[in-house]
Amino acid sequence: MYGLISQMKTLPGRRNEVIAALLAGSKDMPGNITYLIAEDMEDKTLIWITEVWRTKTDHANSLQLESVQEAIGKARPHINGFGTRIETRPVISD
Amino acid sequence: MYGLISQMKTLPGRRNEVIAALLAGSKDMPGNITYLIAEDMEDKTLIWITEVWRTKTDHANSLQLESVQEAIGKARPHINGFGTRIETRPVISD
Repeated sequence: MYGLISQMKTLPGRRNEVIAALLAGSKDMPGNITYLIAEDMEDKTLIWITEVWRTKTDHANSLQLESVQEAIGKARPHINGFGTRIETRPVISD
Repeated sequence: MYGLISQMKTLPGRRNEVIAALLAGSKDMPGNITYLIAEDMEDKTLIWITEVWRTKTDHANSLQLESVQEAIGKARPHINGFGTRIETRPVISD
């Protein structure tokens, strides 16, 4: 399994637009097990995304999906950068 | 909804013991929606936990559960500290 924990910085007041785009674009991605979007409770410009994928390749392939490309296009004008990006090996209990 | 993204530091070579304790102790916690444990891929001493709870109170109450207290007891000898701790507001798609 392959996972990511990443931090996205949005322009002030634009977080909702980015979240809407992420929600719309993160459906039906082959190999995706979890795509959890969360608002940082202290900083209104930060979004945290926790992802679990069957494989790292599945994650890489998802970036070519039309739905994901569309979401990136919608979100980009509202994004102000990226912060923490942790690659993980998720542990799933039996 | 209430969420947490937290980083746990383990003593070298002891990560598996902590993960085993976390897995055992994180079952059947009232109000818990997600409890995702993941190994940091770069640093073998780091564990990342992404949590989603119905409420912040549910999370606080869980710390009193016998199963959680037991897990904390088992893990504590192998833990070397805590790092990042982010409180979040998870966004769940409809």
